Amino acid sequence: MTINAHSGLPEGGKARRVYLLLRDEISNGVFKDGARLPGEHKLAEQFDVSRITIRRALEALAADGWIEKKIGAGSVVRAQEQTGQRMSADFATLIPHLVEMDRTTTARLLSFSYDNAPASVADALGIPEGADVQKAVRVRSSGGQPFSHLTTFVPKDIAVSYDEADLATQPLFRLLERSGVSVESAHQTVTAALATPDVADALEVSVGSPLLFVQRVVRDANGQGVEHLSALYRPDLFRLEMSLARVGAGEARHWEPVIGGLK
Amino acid sequence: MTINAHSGLPEGGKARRVYLLLRDEISNGVFKDGARLPGEHKLAEQFDVSRITIRRALEALAADGWIEKKIGAGSVVRAQEQTGQRMSADFATLIPHLVEMDRTTTARLLSFSYDNAPASVADALGIPEGADVQKAVRVRSSGGQPFSHLTTFVPKDIAVSYDEADLATQPLFRLLERSGVSVESAHQTVTAALATPDVADALEVSVGSPLLFVQRVVRDANGQGVEHLSALYRPDLFRLEMSLARVGAGEARHWEPVIGGLK
Repeated sequence: MTINAHSGLPEGGKARRVYLLLRDEISNGVFKDGARLPGEHKLAEQFDVSRITIRRALEALAADGWIEKKIGAGSVVRAQEQTGQRMSADFATLIPHLVEMDRTTTARLLSFSYDNAPASVADALGIPEGADVQKAVRVRSSGGQPFSHLTTFVPKDIAVSYDEADLATQPLFRLLERSGVSVESAHQTVTAALATPDVADALEVSVGSPLLFVQRVVRDANGQGVEHLSALYRPDLFRLEMSLARVGAGEARHWEPVIGGLK
Repeated sequence: MTINAHSGLPEGGKARRVYLLLRDEISNGVFKDGARLPGEHKLAEQFDVSRITIRRALEALAADGWIEKKIGAGSVVRAQEQTGQRMSADFATLIPHLVEMDRTTTARLLSFSYDNAPASVADALGIPEGADVQKAVRVRSSGGQPFSHLTTFVPKDIAVSYDEADLATQPLFRLLERSGVSVESAHQTVTAALATPDVADALEVSVGSPLLFVQRVVRDANGQGVEHLSALYRPDLFRLEMSLARVGAGEARHWEPVIGGLK
């Protein structure tokens, strides 16, 4: 069983939509191993579709090993074999984490080109719109399973010190360091996005699957942007983890992140 | 223009899927104000659908104000009016942030009940499966726009000190404090999920929209779980923000989060 199993349901159809939503709930732990799904009638009402549509979605879930149809008991969620190790990133230990990730995962370079910076990237890096940037698209895998789709932009004057072969074999932060860049700070925003056709293809998920969307701008000691990253992660294989400890009392109380080691 | 505009495309159809994916890219800034979308032929190839489907999706995007069709120039992205203030949470200042959020946002209680703890919640809180818990579902809005859907579970012995009316008017962390709980630590995982019909309805988005999915377990001084939160956020209205500063050098280098004030 894999996340991209061929459920046999036409892409974009109602039954496939129900299939994806229910599979997402199983994969999120809303329905755990052994849990019983609501009956066809209730699901039809909940998703505002016909019972035939629900039946087709449930048949596909059963065919792909997500549920088991039991006589008298309806649809029961099956134990999920872990198809790959779930990665997790502790933002507080990002660089050691990247070093570790580099040891345990592989990256495949999908494209390497020089391009004009899109407006949003130029804005974030603090360079003129249309300035020359090195654009790379990579897919990172763990145990043969792709889990992240990474698009990076680096200003041309920094990027000239490495080439396609370097980026295919070494992590970008090492290449930046080798270029003499002193990485000083980063800002990242975390949100969610849908898998577009090209990303879905690279990550081996269905078009329209939910993905964790991280955008990071890395700056040098002068505050100059040196890297713009857009990373899309499969939620079944990658999560951000944060530990917080309470500090202070009364109105001054707040959470502080726990600075931990590698996990 | 709102994120849940009635594009007139049937839910679950191909044109609606293309509409949602393109709207997601515009809302994510992949296509900025004034940018030209690829031509119909290229989009048809990219999404593996007919040109008629692309045309219907583009017409709906134009009708909802996301793009403008210009003769000779194709589809041009229109400036997005901000329909509500975008919220952002700095995880490092979570409690002051919650206090501030309580001042500037409103919560609506959708349900309040005592229930048996689902297996995943019991596991996370360290209580027996099926133990009595107080379950509440709330929707938080800013400027009249719902941006988060919150499901919380609190062990019964703590929850008995507050009732439905309390939770409808006060933030949960205050009620926990009032119950004598000394909140000490929290762990949160961040990932992505799709909007199911009930959540989509509460957040006024289309079924199948991408949502940021935060799960948080809050513990007291003895390490006992006192709250389990599942929060789903609209990515157009809420993002997690993290600032990181580099600390150390060589192999000991790492990022540390910047502890900032309210933003």
